Amino acid sequence: MAESMKGLHRSHRCTEVTGSNIGEVVTVMGWVQKSRNKGGIIFVDLRDRSGLLQVIFEEGDIGAEGFAKAEKLRSEFVIAVVGKIEARSGAANENLATGSIELRATELRILSEAETPPFPIEEESKTKEELRLKYRYLDLRRPDLQKNLIMRSKVATLTRQFLAEEGFLEIETPMLTKSTPEGARDYLVPSRVHPGNFYALPQSPQIFKQLLMCSGYDRYFQIVKCFRDEDLRADRQPEFTQIDMELSFVDVDDVIGVNERLLQKLFKETIGVKVSLPIQRMTYAEAMDRFGSDKPDIRFGMELKNVSEVVKNCGFSVFTGALEKGGSVRGINAEGQAEMPRKKIDALVEFAKGFGAKGLAYLAVNSDGTYKSSFSKFMTEEELAALVAAMAGKPGDLLLFAADEDDIVFDVLGNLRLEIARNLDLLKKDEYKFLWVTEFPLLEYSKEEGRFTAKHHPFTMPMEEDLDLLDTDPVKVRAKAYDIVLNGTEIGGGSVRIFQNHVQEKMFEVLGFTKEDAYDRFGFLLNAFKYGVPPHAGLAYGLDRLIMLMAKEDSIRDVIAFPKVKDASCLMTEAPNVVEQKQLDELGIGVVSQEC
Amino acid sequence: MAESMKGLHRSHRCTEVTGSNIGEVVTVMGWVQKSRNKGGIIFVDLRDRSGLLQVIFEEGDIGAEGFAKAEKLRSEFVIAVVGKIEARSGAANENLATGSIELRATELRILSEAETPPFPIEEESKTKEELRLKYRYLDLRRPDLQKNLIMRSKVATLTRQFLAEEGFLEIETPMLTKSTPEGARDYLVPSRVHPGNFYALPQSPQIFKQLLMCSGYDRYFQIVKCFRDEDLRADRQPEFTQIDMELSFVDVDDVIGVNERLLQKLFKETIGVKVSLPIQRMTYAEAMDRFGSDKPDIRFGMELKNVSEVVKNCGFSVFTGALEKGGSVRGINAEGQAEMPRKKIDALVEFAKGFGAKGLAYLAVNSDGTYKSSFSKFMTEEELAALVAAMAGKPGDLLLFAADEDDIVFDVLGNLRLEIARNLDLLKKDEYKFLWVTEFPLLEYSKEEGRFTAKHHPFTMPMEEDLDLLDTDPVKVRAKAYDIVLNGTEIGGGSVRIFQNHVQEKMFEVLGFTKEDAYDRFGFLLNAFKYGVPPHAGLAYGLDRLIMLMAKEDSIRDVIAFPKVKDASCLMTEAPNVVEQKQLDELGIGVVSQEC
Repeated sequence: MAESMKGLHRSHRCTEVTGSNIGEVVTVMGWVQKSRNKGGIIFVDLRDRSGLLQVIFEEGDIGAEGFAKAEKLRSEFVIAVVGKIEARSGAANENLATGSIELRATELRILSEAETPPFPIEEESKTKEELRLKYRYLDLRRPDLQKNLIMRSKVATLTRQFLAEEGFLEIETPMLTKSTPEGARDYLVPSRVHPGNFYALPQSPQIFKQLLMCSGYDRYFQIVKCFRDEDLRADRQPEFTQIDMELSFVDVDDVIGVNERLLQKLFKETIGVKVSLPIQRMTYAEAMDRFGSDKPDIRFGMELKNVSEVVKNCGFSVFTGALEKGGSVRGINAEGQAEMPRKKIDALVEFAKGFGAKGLAYLAVNSDGTYKSSFSKFMTEEELAALVAAMAGKPGDLLLFAADEDDIVFDVLGNLRLEIARNLDLLKKDEYKFLWVTEFPLLEYSKEEGRFTAKHHPFTMPMEEDLDLLDTDPVKVRAKAYDIVLNGTEIGGGSVRIFQNHVQEKMFEVLGFTKEDAYDRFGFLLNAFKYGVPPHAGLAYGLDRLIMLMAKEDSIRDVIAFPKVKDASCLMTEAPNVVEQKQLDELGIGVVSQEC
Repeated sequence: MAESMKGLHRSHRCTEVTGSNIGEVVTVMGWVQKSRNKGGIIFVDLRDRSGLLQVIFEEGDIGAEGFAKAEKLRSEFVIAVVGKIEARSGAANENLATGSIELRATELRILSEAETPPFPIEEESKTKEELRLKYRYLDLRRPDLQKNLIMRSKVATLTRQFLAEEGFLEIETPMLTKSTPEGARDYLVPSRVHPGNFYALPQSPQIFKQLLMCSGYDRYFQIVKCFRDEDLRADRQPEFTQIDMELSFVDVDDVIGVNERLLQKLFKETIGVKVSLPIQRMTYAEAMDRFGSDKPDIRFGMELKNVSEVVKNCGFSVFTGALEKGGSVRGINAEGQAEMPRKKIDALVEFAKGFGAKGLAYLAVNSDGTYKSSFSKFMTEEELAALVAAMAGKPGDLLLFAADEDDIVFDVLGNLRLEIARNLDLLKKDEYKFLWVTEFPLLEYSKEEGRFTAKHHPFTMPMEEDLDLLDTDPVKVRAKAYDIVLNGTEIGGGSVRIFQNHVQEKMFEVLGFTKEDAYDRFGFLLNAFKYGVPPHAGLAYGLDRLIMLMAKEDSIRDVIAFPKVKDASCLMTEAPNVVEQKQLDELGIGVVSQEC
């Protein structure tokens, strides 16, 4: 049975009805959340996007036929109800926006019946994710997912409104473009008209937005899908969405300024969080030194301390050995954790080894001032006391040390700090701490490729004061690059771009590209630069991650309508799938048989 | 030479400076449009996105060094200028927003030099399109293209603002999805993780938006890229942009209502055109009968007249023969064109043949009331007079007739009508005539496939009063489908969707799908329909075409930043291109060698 809604017109969504409508006749439509017959009265919770409204069916109001129909109602039936709004006869339900009223039905139409769903549609679902993703259209009925997607829509709307007011133009860039192998792996699209040739889906609109600056569009933005064919992690999807922007005739402070105001607006108008401006800034060097990370979570302290000077002459060869090899010894102070059981400390040591540590030295300051330590026997009382003092250790504190090359020490302690905070439940999702990290290194050395690669991308502007180092000590060159970090997650990043041909050519030289290579890959950009290019800079946000943090979710799959799982497949549509041979023939490609 | 802009901050765009700034010191940045030295004074037209500003360099203001720099300026150099705004010393230029003022420079920086562009950057460019597309970044500097893209951005902004106010949520649907071969050819994307499997790029978000309605999102929209791997025409691109929407608990009038208000807003707020509501509606049957087209251009008359009854007993066997075969005889009256030279009439006959006509009968009513006709010898004076009367022919009119199957007659005369209007310059680009075409046929018979195919798509709702015809005479079933037509171009279309399982199954049966076929292709949608589905309907606009008409352009390439040409390639990036073998190996595909 599927009745027509002919002659009916929805007058309100469920929670658009309020106390001020008492006595009015309204028409509502939605899904039966639940239905129960209590002493000859049928109570239905009617659900739509806006929330729930209680509907009451009594034979005296709706007649025998209508009542018989109401008796058939089951969860997820779609119905239209006409009736009069009344003050609720029973106790008001304070959990509901419409908790003080109810709708007394005089007409019912069953627009669509429903089978019993394979899992209950409820907030904080306990159903395992695979099943929910297979039936995503049912999972998407859950109020928490609806709330997330409604917020996402609102963030996009506010972003566009703000950027339009700031003089940005939204300009669409191509999805079918050229493969330029540098960075992540491209998704390819075979061409039917040019067999043997391929488009690539864009990893970002980087080059196009720079061209738009060359063309004088002044301020560009786009909320746009980007694609990377990389193995997935919890916060990665093969297709993801960027808020992408580029500005002409600006420097670092201009980009940071406009984005601080954007973030302030978004957080205030969606989740009511006040972002105080200016947002704190920290150089990359300082972030590494204090937090062992280029995306520090500053919701808590537990900062790294460099104790190399303090221990350089001690008797503990693990420390002195690391220093002799040019490394460092650094520590963190887990305050009040001196009593941490040995088993938990061992787990931390294992955790540290996962980041390349050979071990982890620890020292607990007991409440009586004595020490319990993995290395106390190698050091004098004075040396230990100096070390504890350097770490500002008080009775009850647990000090943890790593000694190795700087890179490893930072990575180990930076992650250890987060692990301890997680264990101690220090990471509050409703606390939002923003940080700009600036002055990133321009280059990093790729052992795999035996050459420098661009840390951000090859168009990033070196800091003027470091330009000369490009010839003498490239690894020391800092870039006009910046990341915006929220609660330890990089939610966006960007840079000022090179706009001088001679600097760009030098950059390619340092990256080990021949001039031919460079033109082969980026020729149209390099050519564009010959005809007058403005100074320009930009930034891109990962929208999925940003919404995930705003919605206080742990996975970006909870803020994407139709996400993919770790093997990049969609459990609902079963994409990717096998296609017809005719389709491949038309494209001039074949599947190469795989020997396993 | 590329100077830094350090210490400078742009205070205005070029035309943000007005008479009220006279006496103020401002900093502007942009491109040199042209530069000329007139008696020791250098005049520069400075260009940015907003327009032009005249800058004056005199040695007395800027010093010898600055003046020497100004002497070097050439077209397309990017410069920053600091100076004071003055009333223009020479005659005001009324063509410029800033025509009554000028900037007297006190500081100049050359931010970027420029080579001479390969073609002049000017409005109404005469350079051939291939060259302009190769250097698209230069072509995009032309003010007319900038105006188009700025309008496009504004239309997108206004659309989003309007739809958000109307309760629509913008929800992103996947780009990497499942190939469902029905309709146009898919672009495929090989999967690295699942070798031999492919994603498809979406031809439209149709199924996803219907799922969102099943999930209770109530009102969805998206401005979204869609993909069809079909051979291109002037108004087609391999990737194109839709304004896509779907609404729950609505019928035809609701969709039409919200879209009329949207169109009214867009045309008023971008190009100042008033759209009177309601927009005229016409059934498909009437549109064919009166205009021989399902997208009639109603900026002019010249309507088709069915004269079958008038000629059915005449002596002209071309007419009577067509009628005997079940066809019709129809004509159009090209008023005042009786004097059209024979050569032009012959050209129209050839044009008609291109649409399947065997010939074209014509009759000119001379000013003295006599006739000049290709068929007068076959008809009596009375028959001719009756025919002329039926066509409301007056002295000076040219009547043109086609006699054939209805399909051919409509196609021939519908197109002939447009051809004559083009020849007579009746199609004014600044006149905007909207029309809803409704009640499209649900099905059309595909001779090629030997079965019915869906005219709109397989989810389109039949009109209730025609449901029974699905069994008896499917071709007569009308659909709840509607197109919005502007000046003879379909700018959007949509339908009410089937929401009852039994109707959907019947539809697949009529389309010749087995139940297995249907589930194989659309299983997740059919399954979703089992769990409670609301009545829903939607519409999608072709944004590129809409902007093309608003911008009064002839090609959608003039409203797309980086368009592709007829062979689906991009002349600027040279996509698609050959990729590295390693990339193909990772995807488990190979290029099949082509024997030509």
